[in-house]
Formats: sequence, structure tokens, C-alpha cells
Amino acid sequence: MEKTNTKRKYYRRKPKKAAEAKKPPVRIIPLGGLNEIGKNMTVIECEGDMIIIDCGSTFPDSEMFGIDLVIPDFTFISENADKVKGLVVTHGHEDHIGSIPYLLNTLNVPIYCTKLTKGLIENKLSEFSMKSVAEINEIKDDEPFTLGCMKIVPIHVNHSIPDAVGLAVETPAGTIITTGDFKIDLTPPNSKPTDLATFSQYGEKGVLALLSDSTNAERGGFSNSERTVGMSFERLLKRAGDRRVIIATFASNIYRIQQILDLAADAGRKVCVSGRSMTKNIAMAFELGYLTRHQDIVIEPEEVGSYPPGKIVLLTTGSQGEPLSALSRMANSNHRLFTITPQDFVIISATPIPGNEKMVTKVVNGLLKLGAEVIYENMYDVHVSGHAYQEELKLMLSLVKPKYFIPVHGEYKHLYRHALLAERVGVKKENIVMGNIGEVYRIDENGVTVEEKVTAGSVMVDGYGVGDVGSVVLRDRRMLSQDGLVIVVFTVAYETGDLLAGPDIVSRGFVYVKESEALITEARMAAREVIEKYHDYYYKDWTVIKAKIKDRVSAVLYKRTKRTPVVLPIVMEI
Amino acid sequence: MEKTNTKRKYYRRKPKKAAEAKKPPVRIIPLGGLNEIGKNMTVIECEGDMIIIDCGSTFPDSEMFGIDLVIPDFTFISENADKVKGLVVTHGHEDHIGSIPYLLNTLNVPIYCTKLTKGLIENKLSEFSMKSVAEINEIKDDEPFTLGCMKIVPIHVNHSIPDAVGLAVETPAGTIITTGDFKIDLTPPNSKPTDLATFSQYGEKGVLALLSDSTNAERGGFSNSERTVGMSFERLLKRAGDRRVIIATFASNIYRIQQILDLAADAGRKVCVSGRSMTKNIAMAFELGYLTRHQDIVIEPEEVGSYPPGKIVLLTTGSQGEPLSALSRMANSNHRLFTITPQDFVIISATPIPGNEKMVTKVVNGLLKLGAEVIYENMYDVHVSGHAYQEELKLMLSLVKPKYFIPVHGEYKHLYRHALLAERVGVKKENIVMGNIGEVYRIDENGVTVEEKVTAGSVMVDGYGVGDVGSVVLRDRRMLSQDGLVIVVFTVAYETGDLLAGPDIVSRGFVYVKESEALITEARMAAREVIEKYHDYYYKDWTVIKAKIKDRVSAVLYKRTKRTPVVLPIVMEI
Repeated sequence: MEKTNTKRKYYRRKPKKAAEAKKPPVRIIPLGGLNEIGKNMTVIECEGDMIIIDCGSTFPDSEMFGIDLVIPDFTFISENADKVKGLVVTHGHEDHIGSIPYLLNTLNVPIYCTKLTKGLIENKLSEFSMKSVAEINEIKDDEPFTLGCMKIVPIHVNHSIPDAVGLAVETPAGTIITTGDFKIDLTPPNSKPTDLATFSQYGEKGVLALLSDSTNAERGGFSNSERTVGMSFERLLKRAGDRRVIIATFASNIYRIQQILDLAADAGRKVCVSGRSMTKNIAMAFELGYLTRHQDIVIEPEEVGSYPPGKIVLLTTGSQGEPLSALSRMANSNHRLFTITPQDFVIISATPIPGNEKMVTKVVNGLLKLGAEVIYENMYDVHVSGHAYQEELKLMLSLVKPKYFIPVHGEYKHLYRHALLAERVGVKKENIVMGNIGEVYRIDENGVTVEEKVTAGSVMVDGYGVGDVGSVVLRDRRMLSQDGLVIVVFTVAYETGDLLAGPDIVSRGFVYVKESEALITEARMAAREVIEKYHDYYYKDWTVIKAKIKDRVSAVLYKRTKRTPVVLPIVMEI
Repeated sequence: MEKTNTKRKYYRRKPKKAAEAKKPPVRIIPLGGLNEIGKNMTVIECEGDMIIIDCGSTFPDSEMFGIDLVIPDFTFISENADKVKGLVVTHGHEDHIGSIPYLLNTLNVPIYCTKLTKGLIENKLSEFSMKSVAEINEIKDDEPFTLGCMKIVPIHVNHSIPDAVGLAVETPAGTIITTGDFKIDLTPPNSKPTDLATFSQYGEKGVLALLSDSTNAERGGFSNSERTVGMSFERLLKRAGDRRVIIATFASNIYRIQQILDLAADAGRKVCVSGRSMTKNIAMAFELGYLTRHQDIVIEPEEVGSYPPGKIVLLTTGSQGEPLSALSRMANSNHRLFTITPQDFVIISATPIPGNEKMVTKVVNGLLKLGAEVIYENMYDVHVSGHAYQEELKLMLSLVKPKYFIPVHGEYKHLYRHALLAERVGVKKENIVMGNIGEVYRIDENGVTVEEKVTAGSVMVDGYGVGDVGSVVLRDRRMLSQDGLVIVVFTVAYETGDLLAGPDIVSRGFVYVKESEALITEARMAAREVIEKYHDYYYKDWTVIKAKIKDRVSAVLYKRTKRTPVVLPIVMEI
């Protein structure tokens, strides 16, 4: 082993390069997850065969009024339906599985994923009454499977949910490795470390391209092990003494939940689970064997009262301050079963996702006011991230030694920092692709070329409506939310245009009408003046008069209030 | 000095206690800034005289649709107009001066503040055309002044704006000290450290109550000196080399601006100021003598093109990612004068305020995409906080040694942590007041009692409307923002209730009507059915029929779309 390592490399590479000349190109087409957080989705195409990797959703941003969910645009998938061999899912978080029901409505593609991921996808499909529709194939670490011309090898990685995998996709053009979401935890509780050996073996054999998780590319150093969370919990359970312990964490972090069960058992405490998703996930994790110990100490919420506070751990959702979650309801003193008192010791085992800080603060304030002790944010290492920090990213890059590198999963600033790291560990700058969704990256022996764009973007889900909320509707919602609405309604005679009733003023979200009678009267008079002045000229087409009413009433209202409500004239003809 | 320190204290205290028995009570009435961030305002009353300390505003939260600004409720001030002797302002930030124009509309009280604060208040009043209305008296550190029975001593403190003061209010009941916003900077550039000696002297003489800034009570240790920012800038200016340097920071941080001017002068760079508030503040700071050096290197935006990039520092607003700021416009490539290229080196010298993270990220992404190098968030110490960390708070408490302690300026969690710190440095637990706005804290020799509540709260400013936006209007705006609005309008005969026209359906912010004709037809038919079915019974009072239309149409729309727009029936009678 120790001899002529560099020489071997030299001899091995030479013939490879010659062989590469005859290789077909491979195309990588990101449809989500680049220059954005969430809705991860990537297509790999080689010799006319396509596989999809992940199919996630994301949350609407604050400008998407009333929108429930955002999913990728599936146009490209529909257009290539005959080529798609399967959807391979790296793990069971929403940003990787959340759009699957919508994808299956477009194209019923077979799904390939590990056991826990399968369970989570099935739960999701059940909510859409689609469980029977899908073909879900269970895959395992290190057990290759074939889709078209591609051999796919799942590689075990650490993440904040069990059963996460990276993928080595062996195509005729070369091997593409995608890490999925990952971190490197050398002491993972109830699991094994990220399979560095396999990544390294691929690195030795030669990897054409690496797609790697950029979420934490801004954070220096190496992320802490999940085990440190358990160690903190152990100290905190002691400190809680004879108080009730309430721990809020993500329902999918089964490793953390097992640690909590173990520590509770050691401390002679029963564990009560609160919150729908937490209850559902824990039941499934026991069933599938991801939780293996201490199911016997789990009690029903109704039983909690029979034990002294010092014998209870309440495990709950709401670590992001979600207003309807169990923890929020406790903090607001309106939980059906649990009342917070100074006999409570609350641990919020999570970091607020950007945008959720204020909601979490509200919950913390509420709990403190009720007398509880609260451990939150970065106090006492009660949370670690599931995504690799800079040193881990560099380690992955160093082991895989890809020829081409595409940082994925992140905003531009994350991809950019990840690209800098890659450069620093030796990837050539011209071989690093700062990608964007909808772009087609064709890789062959001559390098990467960007082919013409395909359709990609965000599709908004609003109730049953998928993609039917356009910019007009959103603009209306935004304007209505700002200064409300003033309706000017009147009835006219169809033949003559004579005013029969009104104009009346109805408003919503504007000033409170009862207190603003003078203002409303002035607006009404203004509208009436416009009608009287113009109706002789325009009564066959009220469009002009409506526009003039709108302008005139808006001007009156702005002058008096400095507000700009939506003014909506409605005319009824008899 | 060194002998019998404890004895002296003992002898001094004995007669004091006897004297205290005859002392009147003092009342402390917080009207803003407790259990919230911003709109700081506190009233101190003794022997019928009142002073107001600060009069700040705050930003609307995300549920306050369309609201421009939030100010304190001034009811208590109006009710006690004859008692109020003056408003004392500790410094010129919005959360301490932002509501002054609205207060002056309620009660034209004389204002007392330092020179820079006066300048900033005058600028603000000019915008309201109220500059001539106000009586503003300039005060100076260590120069006592009297308001009614109270002697007030301004004490110099460090903060992220010059001319900030704490106040010692010597009342017949004893001395109340309020720190205002403060930190302890032992090496402040262009200024002197917080006047610890004076705080300490009061501590020795005896302080009845301390009100202290809790903003950073969650942060351990001692905050960095503003000078460290200058040191970072110096290194970064070198690293920028021949690139243009763009620094975004708060327009009121005059210390930082002077450091930037100094370093630019040393580096042979000209400084161009961009952004309205930045330009205005810098002009005023030079005029009033808070900026003292290198006005000669300041150039106009139009001159920038005449210099190579390496000779320019652009000083700009927008460090919080504000969408209309100069920096945001540069990041979006729509700034009138400045185009970002790889020849730009951008420093965002600020930390995102909770809630602004996404906006700042958008700006960073935009700048990076244009090829600039960007230094942001906690990279390279380019920002320090203006608020004291835990060790500074403990130092203040230890020097002032107050009998009673009221943590102010913060959410409940901040006040709570500050209270714990106070306990740890020796304030008796029963003498720490976890306060709330509108509560009256009466302090006399027997302790603190909470008297009955006075009116206090948040008043929303919406255009010219101050306080006229009620919960009904906000609820309407929220509902309109979610799923939009569907109007059902019809005309009937007044006498018979016969339907003469309609029902017509008009919508805004709901589905795009042109694409949903079938749905709209179904809703119209449903409305018509309701009218026909019930009009014989109810045509004299359409309220009932309107409610039934609302229910029926809502049900039809929900069933088909899973959306719940506001349904608004309008009936016109002829």
C-alpha cells in the first residue's frame, strides 16, 4: 500500500483519459435548491435516461400572501416523462420529500428510498389519499440498484434524521456523487458515522462531479456531535431536580428522541409525547425499529397527572415557536391538558430558523412569565446542526476529489462560500459551477458547458389551487393587506345611464367607517359628481367612468388620510 | 479614605433611615419599552411633579398590516398635563425620540437633551413642520438642571451614537438613576468612557432605584470596543487593495463614520456619502462638531467616476437590507449612479436586527452575484453592539448599588436575565421589579407597591391616522391578505324585495376570475338561490339574507378551492 502511490495514480489516469474520449456526456439539471433554501430537486440525464434526486417543498416567503406551500415547477419532468426512470430520495425531511404528492400527480414515477424515508413518504401520501398510487422501493446503504444506464449506490451519511444517504450515481460518463444533506458525526448516538470509506474509495477511483450540501458553508470549524446534546440533557435533567421537564425539538430527530428516552429512563422519569407530528413519528420509529429502547416508559397525556412533576418528561413540538404548536399553547396558557408553573423546566432544543426568531421569543417570554425556567437558543449546547460545517465540507471534498464541483442546497452566499472552500482544497476554479435552477450542465471530457435553459421555478400551492395564483392575485392581496379596500357601488338604468341607487361606499380594512362618517360622505359625493358629470358621454361603456371614480375617490381619501386603499367601483345595470 | 469604610457606612446609614421615614413617595410609571423592544418612555413623579424620560417609537410587527409606526399611548400624559415639567431625552435614536412629534401634538412640553440629540430631534420636527413649535433646551454632562422638585444630572455614557447620557434624578424621595441605552467602552474613539466615577459616587451616596438597559442581558462577557471596528476596517482597507470599498452602516453611528474618514484619509481614498439619512447626519455632525476631521476628502457622488476604484470609499445606508436603501439598489443593479463589479469590496458593518435576516441575505446574494467581495455579519469584527453585555451590566449594578432595581428596555426574557444578574451582584430579590408598561411603582421607605394601572399601550400610526386603526380593521387586512375578497352584489326593489339586477360576483386577490368562470358561475347561482328562497320572509331586513349568502357562497368556494376569501354581500335597494 505504502509504495508508489503517486506513480500508481499516474499510470491509472493515463488510460482513463484515453477511454474518456469515447464517453457520452452526462447532464445535471437542478430544478430546485440552488439560490434558495428548500425544495431540493435535481435531474441527472445520461444516454437518454433520467433520474430525479429528491423532490422537496419550501415555505412561502412573507410576500406570498396566503400561500400554503411552494413546490418546484414540474414542466421539465412532464416534457421528459418517457425518460424518467425513477425518483431517488436521500432522506425524509420536507425540503426533500414535500412535493412528492404533487409530482406523482404529474407523473407516477417509481420512488427509491431507505426504510424510514419510505415511512415518512407514505404518511404524507396518506394525507393526500395517494398511498396506494405510489410505487416505493426500499433501498439500503451499499446495496446498488440500477435505473436505466445508471448504477446507484446509496452511501450512509449523518444528518438530523436517521436513514439519510448520499448517492454515488455511476453513469457511462463517470460517477456523480451527491451528498444529500449531511454532516460528519464521529460519535453518532444509535448510528454509525458518515461512510467516509466509501466516499474515499470513489475518490480514489475518480469522481466526475460532486454535488454537496452548502447549508452551513458560512460556519467555520467542525459541527458538534449529536451526542453533545445528550450530554447537555443529562446535566439539565439533574438540574431540573423535582421539576417537570419539557423538551421541545423537531419531530423527525429520532436520534435525539432516543437519547431523551434513555436519559428519562435512567432518571426514573416517564415520557409523555405531545403534538401530532411528534406522536406519529415516534410510533412509526418504534414500529420500524429506529427507536429501540424504553417504549415502556411512554405514557399517555391523561396519565401525566398521576405522577409528581419530577417524574415526568414532556416531549413536544413547537421548537420554532409555531403559533399552533403544543409548546406555544402552553406558553399562552391555553393548552387543553398542560399548565405551566414554576415547577416546569423547559428546554427548547433547536435554533430558530431565520424568520422565526420573533415567534420563538414570544414562546420563551410566555413560559418565563408563567414561572418556568427556560433553556433556549445557544444556552448549554441543547442543539447541534445536522449540516456539515466548513471543515467537514473540506474533508468531503478532499476525500471525493471530484473533477467538477457543484455546490447545492443554499442561497447564493452559501454556494459562493462553498465554492471558495473547494478552490482551497484543490478543485480547479474553472471546474467549479455556480449553478442555478433550470440550467443544464453538460459534462464531458472537454469540460462543463451550460446548455439552453429549461423551465424551472416556484409553483405556489394555495388551497387546492396549484400554480393558479398569479402575480395579479398576489399583488391584489398585498395591496389589500396594506390599506384595505373601498368599494363604490351604484345602480344605473341600462338604457339611459340614469343613477337609480347609490353610490354607496363599503369598506374593509380601511378606517373604521362608523368613526369616519364625514370622510365617507365626502368620498360618496365625489363619486356622485363624477357620475353626473360624465354619464351622458360614457353611459354605454362604464369603464371610463369607473376609472375616473377610482382616481377621484382615491385622491379624496389620500388627501384626508394619507392612505391608499384599493378603490373598487362596481356598477349594476338594470 | 482607607480607614473604617464599613463603619462610616454604618454611621451614615442610621440617621438616613430615620430621615427617610419623613420622605414622600416617588412613582415610576413606564409607558413603553418593557416587554417590548422600542418606544421607550418612562414617567417619574414626586410631590405632584412629573418628568418624562424619552419618547420613542417602534416598528410595526408583521401582523400590523399597512401600519407605518407604533407609538406609546399618551392618555396618561394628557390626563396629567398640568404636572408634566419636561421631557428629558437620553439620546437621538428612533426608539428614544421617534414619537416626539406625536407627543407634542398632545402636549407641548419643553424638551431637555444634549446637543446632537437636539439636532436630530429638530430634523425630525422639520419633517412634520413642527420645528418652531418645540422648546428644546440643551443640556450637558454633569451640568444639573431642575424640573419641579427634581434635580437632574446627565451622566455621560457610551452608546452607538454620540452624546448619549444616563440620568441621575434626585427627587425628595431619593435618587433614581436611569442608564438610558449604554455600554462601557474603555477605549472609545473620539470620546471618553462611560462616566463610571459619577455612577459610583451616586452608589456611595445611596441610590433608591436603578433603571438599566436590558437589551443585551442574554449576552455573556463584555462587549468589544468600537475601536475594534476601526482596527478591522484598517486591515480590510489594505486587503481591498485597488478595489473600491463600500461600507454600509447606521447613519447615526458618528464614531464609526469618523473612524472611516480617518482611515480613508490615511489610505489616500476619497469618501463619497450615499443615502439621504447618511448625508443629512454627516452634514449635521460636521456642523455641530461631532465629526472633526477630514471633511475635505468628502466628495460628491458625481465625482466618484473621476477617481480609480482604489481611491474611493463609498459610505452608505442599507446595512439592514432595507429594500429602498442605496445598498439594496446597488445589489439589484438599479442604483442611479453606482454599478457593482468585481472591483468592489463591500463591508456591511452591522448585525441584522431579528426579522431583517432575509432582507440582508438578499442584498449579500445580489452583491456577490455581481462579483463583489462582501464582508457581512460576524466576519472580521466589522460591528460591535452599542448595548452593555452581562459583565457591563453587573459592573453598573455593582457601582450604583441601588436599593430597588427595575430592568428596562427589553422583552420579558431580557428583563428576566437582567434581574437574575442583579440578584447575583447582591440586589435583594424582593427589591427587583419585573415591570410592565402602565403599572405605577410607588417607592417609599416601606418598599415598592404596585398601584392601580394607568392607560398604556401601542398606538398605531397609519398615514395621517393616529390610533384610529382598530383591531377590526387589522383583522380585515389580515383576512384580505390571505385569500382575497369575493363581493356578491345585487339590486332589489325597495318595496317588494324583487331582484332587479345581479347577483354579480367581483373578486380581488382570490383566484384569477377569467380562468375560473365555472366556479364564479356556481357561486352566483348559489347566491341567487339563497335570495329567491328567503326574500319573501326577510326582504325588509336584508341582514339575514346577506349572512346566508355569505355562508352559502363561502361553502361553495371552500369546497371547490379549499380557500376562505372574505365574502362580502352588498345589496342596493331602489
